[in-house]
Amino acid sequence: MSRYTVISADCHAGATYALGGFLDYVDPAYRERLREEMARLEKENQERMAKLFASEFMAEQDNTEEALHGGRSGAWDPDRRLKELEADGIVADVIFPDGSQNNGAPFQAASGPGAIGADHALQSVGAWAYNRWLAEFCAHAPGRHAGVALMTVHDVEEAVRQVEWAGENGLRGVLLPAGVGDLPFYHHPRYEPIWSICEERGLVLHTHVGSATPDYGDLPGAGALFAYESLWFSHRPLWFLIWGGVFERHPELAIVFAEQGADWVPDTLRIMDNLYLHMFRHEQKRLPMRPSEYWARQCYVEAMFLSRREARMRERIGIGSLLWGSDYPHYEGSWPRSKELIATALKDVSERERRAILSENAAALYGFDLSELDAIGREFGPEIPPPEPEEPRPGAKIH
Amino acid sequence: MSRYTVISADCHAGATYALGGFLDYVDPAYRERLREEMARLEKENQERMAKLFASEFMAEQDNTEEALHGGRSGAWDPDRRLKELEADGIVADVIFPDGSQNNGAPFQAASGPGAIGADHALQSVGAWAYNRWLAEFCAHAPGRHAGVALMTVHDVEEAVRQVEWAGENGLRGVLLPAGVGDLPFYHHPRYEPIWSICEERGLVLHTHVGSATPDYGDLPGAGALFAYESLWFSHRPLWFLIWGGVFERHPELAIVFAEQGADWVPDTLRIMDNLYLHMFRHEQKRLPMRPSEYWARQCYVEAMFLSRREARMRERIGIGSLLWGSDYPHYEGSWPRSKELIATALKDVSERERRAILSENAAALYGFDLSELDAIGREFGPEIPPPEPEEPRPGAKIH
Repeated sequence: MSRYTVISADCHAGATYALGGFLDYVDPAYRERLREEMARLEKENQERMAKLFASEFMAEQDNTEEALHGGRSGAWDPDRRLKELEADGIVADVIFPDGSQNNGAPFQAASGPGAIGADHALQSVGAWAYNRWLAEFCAHAPGRHAGVALMTVHDVEEAVRQVEWAGENGLRGVLLPAGVGDLPFYHHPRYEPIWSICEERGLVLHTHVGSATPDYGDLPGAGALFAYESLWFSHRPLWFLIWGGVFERHPELAIVFAEQGADWVPDTLRIMDNLYLHMFRHEQKRLPMRPSEYWARQCYVEAMFLSRREARMRERIGIGSLLWGSDYPHYEGSWPRSKELIATALKDVSERERRAILSENAAALYGFDLSELDAIGREFGPEIPPPEPEEPRPGAKIH
Repeated sequence: MSRYTVISADCHAGATYALGGFLDYVDPAYRERLREEMARLEKENQERMAKLFASEFMAEQDNTEEALHGGRSGAWDPDRRLKELEADGIVADVIFPDGSQNNGAPFQAASGPGAIGADHALQSVGAWAYNRWLAEFCAHAPGRHAGVALMTVHDVEEAVRQVEWAGENGLRGVLLPAGVGDLPFYHHPRYEPIWSICEERGLVLHTHVGSATPDYGDLPGAGALFAYESLWFSHRPLWFLIWGGVFERHPELAIVFAEQGADWVPDTLRIMDNLYLHMFRHEQKRLPMRPSEYWARQCYVEAMFLSRREARMRERIGIGSLLWGSDYPHYEGSWPRSKELIATALKDVSERERRAILSENAAALYGFDLSELDAIGREFGPEIPPPEPEEPRPGAKIH
């Protein structure tokens, strides 16, 4: 059996409020305000989590050996983080903002301009604070973390500055808010400077599950409705970037759809290709490629966590578009059982494809030095038995 | 070869503005206003259609023998309608509002409270006018049309009166607006009287593709974005009714998801069942059945038009949940090629299942007298060769 190098394309980090959170990173004029926010959130977050997940589910996740011994504090402790990741078979990670443990970015900065009660100007302040903290956090092990910066798209010029700063300070991507509230959506030309600067600086766009949803109120079923709809709302920028011609105008721009399943991709592309080939064939002058071709060229998906069923759809999703992620240190993620879950998911996938999905795609996209990571992977990476002879591919005849 | 009785569960009708539209059916106080609206829409509709569909696509559809000879006027001419339907192999239909030929329900009544520029009070006036006209239209051949009435959900008491009137006047269902604008969504208890009266009177709820979308502006790609997103927005009430406990409280309530594909159903149910069984297992006390079980008991889908690929997913969608529809007389529908398309889609489906999908499910749901319809179907229904021995079912191993 050979070991595999694993880059988790979906992990989370944030400064714990218990140690002052982002206070040292925020503009001094906003420190008092941030202190107030932290005090308020310490209460609210607990209630929110209790509504979101079944208590039995939370208890199970808290009851693992690793969680009992403080593993989740890797969200702000960079040394513990690396140890936990290695123990889980992972040698490098892509870091998104957190919020599951009283460590969310200040002033709802990660939630986008459509978040309930969002104050756009304050969100900008929060984004800068988070980005400064994140750059420092990633610098603890620069070859092993790819930080995803926040940008506040209500102010496009400010967002451009945030992207520039992120690139200059070692961060590798930016979070594109999946929802925009009352702003025009992403087919609008107002966002053009953002696409240009991301393409020019090689910063990868990301949407991540968990935002952009409407207010479900304090009603029975609200938590499940959030969990379900948040998936679709996170996919949503895809078709705006395609039909809006953004991928056509910016062929070097890349986007990752993180923690939102991967099985939705083939159907989505099939329906859009059909529209393109039939009802909307007049769009072919403006968009010379099919939606599925823009996908193949510029889009990536991280399922969290990839199922065996999704791995079997890999050709229709695109081997080159698949990333693997653990969601460390979240309750719903694969940590600390990633090795076992990877082996199950990729049971009947060839070695070459396994390497693409587990590390090569992410390394090329984020600029990780794979020779350096492979050296660590040979020590800590999961061992997976050789692929079993595959059963006849289901669905092959359908298309 | 035997003939099949076909009920189209998705057709459209509306009074043409060229002959006065709904003027005779609207409250006299609003006639002048309606005259103005019709004059305005005659111009706007043409532009809207030109933006929505490629002109080559429109030209192809207009160039059929049937369309050239006025077939689309069956949208308001009940005698021509029956002839056209029969020639297309269809003996009865479910009728939704129209709008593709300057014959839309007055005052955006069919577009729901979230429609751009919607005036809720005027929509109510328009709904009553449409319902009066529809009841009269259906009465031309009462055993062969199931009319879907409009209700205006911003005013729940008024909506209840609309449902009552619809039931008393021979209509068989009501259109549930897929979007609600600023109103709470359908998990909110404010709608409880609507669910109760529909269940009590046996009126079937429907959502139909083509509304509930946001404003995409006058931007490149807007038409395709509308066509694509409108599908999801039309599915959306499903999970609110499930997680909101509406199907649990109203086990006799039924809903049809019309003209919105059927291939989305298995994935949707799988994800919701997973949430129910794991992260949200605390909901099992409130909702004793899985989401997929509520679907099987109370939900129906009409794909327009069903593809062979979707027909092969029939067990996972539910044989008892599938309806077939032609979308007569719309451009994007199967008319006048329904017989051919039915034969292709159901090529490898058993005779028993064909009958369920083509007529029995709809007859049971809407109360059509199938012995009466079968007599007509034996004359006009499509002939389909016996099912071919089926290839191994793709996907069977995935689940």
